[in-house]
Amino acid sequence: MGNSIGKLFVVTSFGESHGRCVGVVVDGCPAGLPLSQADVQKELERRRPSSAAGGTARREQDRVEILSGLFSGFTTGAPICMLTWNKDSDSSVYEKFRSIPRPGQADYAAFIRYGGFNDYRGGGRFSGRITAGFVMAGAVALKLLKRAGVEVIAHTAQIGDVRAGSVTPAQMRKNAEGNAVKCADPKAASRMAALIKKVQKAGDSIGGIVEAVALNVPAGLGQPVFENLEGELARAFFSIPAVKGVEFGSGFAVAGMKGSENNDVFVSRGGKIVTLTNNAGGISGGISNGMPITAKVAFKPTASISMRQRSINLKTGKSVDLELKGRHDACIVPRAVPVVQSMMSVVLCDFCLRAGLLKEVLE
Amino acid sequence: MGNSIGKLFVVTSFGESHGRCVGVVVDGCPAGLPLSQADVQKELERRRPSSAAGGTARREQDRVEILSGLFSGFTTGAPICMLTWNKDSDSSVYEKFRSIPRPGQADYAAFIRYGGFNDYRGGGRFSGRITAGFVMAGAVALKLLKRAGVEVIAHTAQIGDVRAGSVTPAQMRKNAEGNAVKCADPKAASRMAALIKKVQKAGDSIGGIVEAVALNVPAGLGQPVFENLEGELARAFFSIPAVKGVEFGSGFAVAGMKGSENNDVFVSRGGKIVTLTNNAGGISGGISNGMPITAKVAFKPTASISMRQRSINLKTGKSVDLELKGRHDACIVPRAVPVVQSMMSVVLCDFCLRAGLLKEVLE
Amino acid sequence: MGNSIGKLFVVTSFGESHGRCVGVVVDGCPAGLPLSQADVQKELERRRPSSAAGGTARREQDRVEILSGLFSGFTTGAPICMLTWNKDSDSSVYEKFRSIPRPGQADYAAFIRYGGFNDYRGGGRFSGRITAGFVMAGAVALKLLKRAGVEVIAHTAQIGDVRAGSVTPAQMRKNAEGNAVKCADPKAASRMAALIKKVQKAGDSIGGIVEAVALNVPAGLGQPVFENLEGELARAFFSIPAVKGVEFGSGFAVAGMKGSENNDVFVSRGGKIVTLTNNAGGISGGISNGMPITAKVAFKPTASISMRQRSINLKTGKSVDLELKGRHDACIVPRAVPVVQSMMSVVLCDFCLRAGLLKEVLE
Amino acid sequence: MGNSIGKLFVVTSFGESHGRCVGVVVDGCPAGLPLSQADVQKELERRRPSSAAGGTARREQDRVEILSGLFSGFTTGAPICMLTWNKDSDSSVYEKFRSIPRPGQADYAAFIRYGGFNDYRGGGRFSGRITAGFVMAGAVALKLLKRAGVEVIAHTAQIGDVRAGSVTPAQMRKNAEGNAVKCADPKAASRMAALIKKVQKAGDSIGGIVEAVALNVPAGLGQPVFENLEGELARAFFSIPAVKGVEFGSGFAVAGMKGSENNDVFVSRGGKIVTLTNNAGGISGGISNGMPITAKVAFKPTASISMRQRSINLKTGKSVDLELKGRHDACIVPRAVPVVQSMMSVVLCDFCLRAGLLKEVLE
Repeated sequence: MGNSIGKLFVVTSFGESHGRCVGVVVDGCPAGLPLSQADVQKELERRRPSSAAGGTARREQDRVEILSGLFSGFTTGAPICMLTWNKDSDSSVYEKFRSIPRPGQADYAAFIRYGGFNDYRGGGRFSGRITAGFVMAGAVALKLLKRAGVEVIAHTAQIGDVRAGSVTPAQMRKNAEGNAVKCADPKAASRMAALIKKVQKAGDSIGGIVEAVALNVPAGLGQPVFENLEGELARAFFSIPAVKGVEFGSGFAVAGMKGSENNDVFVSRGGKIVTLTNNAGGISGGISNGMPITAKVAFKPTASISMRQRSINLKTGKSVDLELKGRHDACIVPRAVPVVQSMMSVVLCDFCLRAGLLKEVLE
Repeated sequence: MGNSIGKLFVVTSFGESHGRCVGVVVDGCPAGLPLSQADVQKELERRRPSSAAGGTARREQDRVEILSGLFSGFTTGAPICMLTWNKDSDSSVYEKFRSIPRPGQADYAAFIRYGGFNDYRGGGRFSGRITAGFVMAGAVALKLLKRAGVEVIAHTAQIGDVRAGSVTPAQMRKNAEGNAVKCADPKAASRMAALIKKVQKAGDSIGGIVEAVALNVPAGLGQPVFENLEGELARAFFSIPAVKGVEFGSGFAVAGMKGSENNDVFVSRGGKIVTLTNNAGGISGGISNGMPITAKVAFKPTASISMRQRSINLKTGKSVDLELKGRHDACIVPRAVPVVQSMMSVVLCDFCLRAGLLKEVLE
Repeated sequence: MGNSIGKLFVVTSFGESHGRCVGVVVDGCPAGLPLSQADVQKELERRRPSSAAGGTARREQDRVEILSGLFSGFTTGAPICMLTWNKDSDSSVYEKFRSIPRPGQADYAAFIRYGGFNDYRGGGRFSGRITAGFVMAGAVALKLLKRAGVEVIAHTAQIGDVRAGSVTPAQMRKNAEGNAVKCADPKAASRMAALIKKVQKAGDSIGGIVEAVALNVPAGLGQPVFENLEGELARAFFSIPAVKGVEFGSGFAVAGMKGSENNDVFVSRGGKIVTLTNNAGGISGGISNGMPITAKVAFKPTASISMRQRSINLKTGKSVDLELKGRHDACIVPRAVPVVQSMMSVVLCDFCLRAGLLKEVLE
Repeated sequence: MGNSIGKLFVVTSFGESHGRCVGVVVDGCPAGLPLSQADVQKELERRRPSSAAGGTARREQDRVEILSGLFSGFTTGAPICMLTWNKDSDSSVYEKFRSIPRPGQADYAAFIRYGGFNDYRGGGRFSGRITAGFVMAGAVALKLLKRAGVEVIAHTAQIGDVRAGSVTPAQMRKNAEGNAVKCADPKAASRMAALIKKVQKAGDSIGGIVEAVALNVPAGLGQPVFENLEGELARAFFSIPAVKGVEFGSGFAVAGMKGSENNDVFVSRGGKIVTLTNNAGGISGGISNGMPITAKVAFKPTASISMRQRSINLKTGKSVDLELKGRHDACIVPRAVPVVQSMMSVVLCDFCLRAGLLKEVLE
């Protein structure tokens, strides 16, 4: 269990890194949305690895197939099953690590959790590869949200110690796809790419932060207290492998702030109530307040590195040295940009449906 | 909707700051747990305001009453309804702010969300006061977890720019309740208390961070991908008012780390598999790995401050000055310590039940 | 767990027959519905026992108290906690039956399920008394549905071998409350009352059937395949103690029918699509089709009878004779009429909210 | 939404009658269960149409493919996606019925529900064909239950006015698969087959009843009040197309019974507590009591008949005559036997997992 998310817009994930396929069932998309394989493929392409950004050498075509829920080019209201067949998996290197858990990976926890029956090849169910399914679902969500006028954008805000400068949504929209690291600040992007190259050369990996913004979200979405917007978004973000922190608006920085600094002051702008600052990240009391929803998601460095590491042989209980020769990303962050965007879209779709918004848009 | 959390251990919250009561229904507690009103009262006391830590002047007795689910001193397996009657609420000051949203509060978002019908008195449903119910639920969860040998502890790790030094679980257990700010580092505690006094005097407020640790959690809890341990914990933490960030293990710091630094190395210690470091915060691939689960939760400064602030009159659309004379905490963080602890316990209880653990403990 | 029902209109039940109270939390009622204690009390009165219909001698006042979710006479969008305090419980007779399960009751199953910790007094959590909470929730649902123009009515269709003749909705509305057995067919009502008297005199009890109809339900409600209207209604009905069967439209009779008899033929009446017959009971493919939704719910005879019965002593394993002196209903069916109506209303409310209907009605 | 069922054993259905495939995702199956494509295929075969029982002329091979969740012949704990590709669909006949709803079908309700965007071909999502997915899920559940010693069997209890005599579980196990109508009473089976032939010849169809029994279910499964065993089973049964009634134990007959007749008397048999009768159908207070769980499920006659019928043209609003030339079953009941069995198994699996039972079995 635990492979479904959402209440009215329900996404069920399936598939493994080296199994037959990776896929998703999207249940709850209203009928009547124009949708094509190309719509989904477009988003999947954004998730593919780029060698310029230290991406894995595994070259999956990631061609999406839509198996259900579509008829004559429109969604039918029935569940949409989508998948991509795995074609370039190489499981040969994983056999010997079966009893030697790789540091930083889920190998050991999964071994205990599933009594050794989990598909360990390429990380199996814990691989970043399953996020291909997240992006398929996100593609549907993005299209739906567009109907309601909501836009979700994202970019790489930090790689290692390289931080992007402050960027506007317009810059994010324009620049994020213009470079391999998907950073909206072109100068920082170059330095990020250089840093990735450097750690990759050393056989190491590096972490980073993805920043996501939802624009034009109507005020009033969210269910206090337990199904509030921040909690549901955080849960969705933490379902992305390698995420270790999530914050909204000024996030952890609020710990050092005074109320007089942090409180966002309301003013009227062209008849609309807005706030002068957005420390709240567009969410007050768990409910959208009409300002842009801003979130930051921290990714740890890829656990798979080619440097020699120490681990333990679970059978003998003895320490061993370990060298990984699998193909992996030196930095997962650029590829995580569309994934974060997808999960944000999926959650916002759910809340729009709960508020009865998208229904009206479609009919 | 949205006022329930959990799958097998389900907590439903109800009540308002200035309504008749604040309460909770705990559904899913196995039968046979010894439980008394005193067990719950003890935890509630820890949440009460301390004037030494800038706590509100509102003095609720917070006497818990258990209305159901208990028989002859044991839980029966039936839902446990608990509440505390509100006695010291003063709603007089709130009437005039009905159309003037207080900065940093949920007033405006709630107004839009509920079409003006929400109970605005004292923040109503958005008040920190509803967390009294969270703590009641947490008291049950803590007792249950103790049966499984799991311990959940917490303390104040940061107030404003004052950070606690690194503390061991033993210190946290021993020192956290020894001072008004609930910080396990006594030196930092004094400076935190002084800082709170200072901002309180200025009519301002200050934010901070609560750190929580779960010890002795068995490896193998958690459901990848969408109901993983981090996601469910984060969702629970974000249901606490004023939380703007959540991280596990090394959290946001992982963004600046290399894989070779961040990967926790497995070793065998006394026949048990452990890791030398705990950057993962006890969770790998969303599943507990047997190491302590560590989380940090960032709280923004209390939105209610007595300094003059600007806002807008929703009826006239004009900017106005605003002075709040309600009773409020200059820093909510010390009182949030048992709340964070409670939500962590509630989630872990749920996962223990899913894993069939507590059942065995009880019978 | 298992004490909540609904997705967007969530009802959580708590309380026991001889505990402090019986209550309910209704979460998901939109803000802005006028609601008073009297609205709920009115429905509760309909559930009270009538000696003319063999009702129990236990005389609870059943005064509802609304503890939360209401402000200035309107719902606020916050969870509505309602309860009634138990005042006339007499637990003295139950102690000796602790180890002797009463035939037809849940005693034995509950003993096993809860390891002997369940509150056995008066049936505890399994008592029909908990349906007082169902009716409180139903009162809110009925008011909400009225806003959408939906009406839910019910009556006693059968007691023992006495069957009501076919009645129109108008007759049901008019006559059902006019007699103690709540049967819309006055002639049958008299015979039902006489039958109940007779079995009561013999120290026995008798079963029956409640029929419920929802009028003016818009076509298009329901979610195939697993959250369809029939399935969700059936689940709600089976949560009422003593229910052993549920059917829609022609129900079990369809087993003996041919397609040419059972298929409802579409015609146009005043511009509206209707069917000439309603064998489908207003539900096709799990979705409302615009015709009245009709359901029948079968209740077994009250298990508590004063006749001598055989049972077994769980401690000794020996057969014993058993005489029950508690106060009980000779026929539960008339009192179940408002309960069935309530559960039908609760489910329809949920589906209306999913379809975005009630939202529009309120604003 | 609405295409998932279960809490810990979650089944998500997808696919359409004339789309690319029909499938299912089973989430929550514990790791370590031996499972092969053949295990699932075997159950699917039981659902295939038999011309001897009036089955449809559509001849789908129904070869199952398992796409995920399996590794080296064992389940891995990951979601199991299974499907069968549609090969023999003929959509040509359906185009003209797009605006003429077929009597007894979901056409009209679906048209309203989905604004005309639903895939109407062959009934689309409302076709009995989607139950192929139910049977795939059931095959997994049946294997799991066997581990816990639980057996679920079913047979055809009634077709039209032909009722099977009372049969023992042993007869059901032995005889149900021995004839085309899947009735455990061989004499009744012949008359049923003859009746089906007769209505088929007349271009008509006929309804019936499936009876299911779960043996060796441990006492104590079920969650009162809203997630009780009867309610959850009923919801699962009503998700099968054409079901109009569900009853447990003596079912609707209890309406005519007295308490002294209906109460099942406890006795001790070989150290085990049993009841002399089983009017409760193995469920007391919503909880299993250790006796066989018995259910009856009423199916309406197939809506598709080749006799001329009246309907209405939704565009013109005029009555029209309608003749259906599609391929369809004259009686769906025999093919529904494995489907009822599957849904019962799916629900019982969920409850066994909630009770922590299957976990122990596997490890």
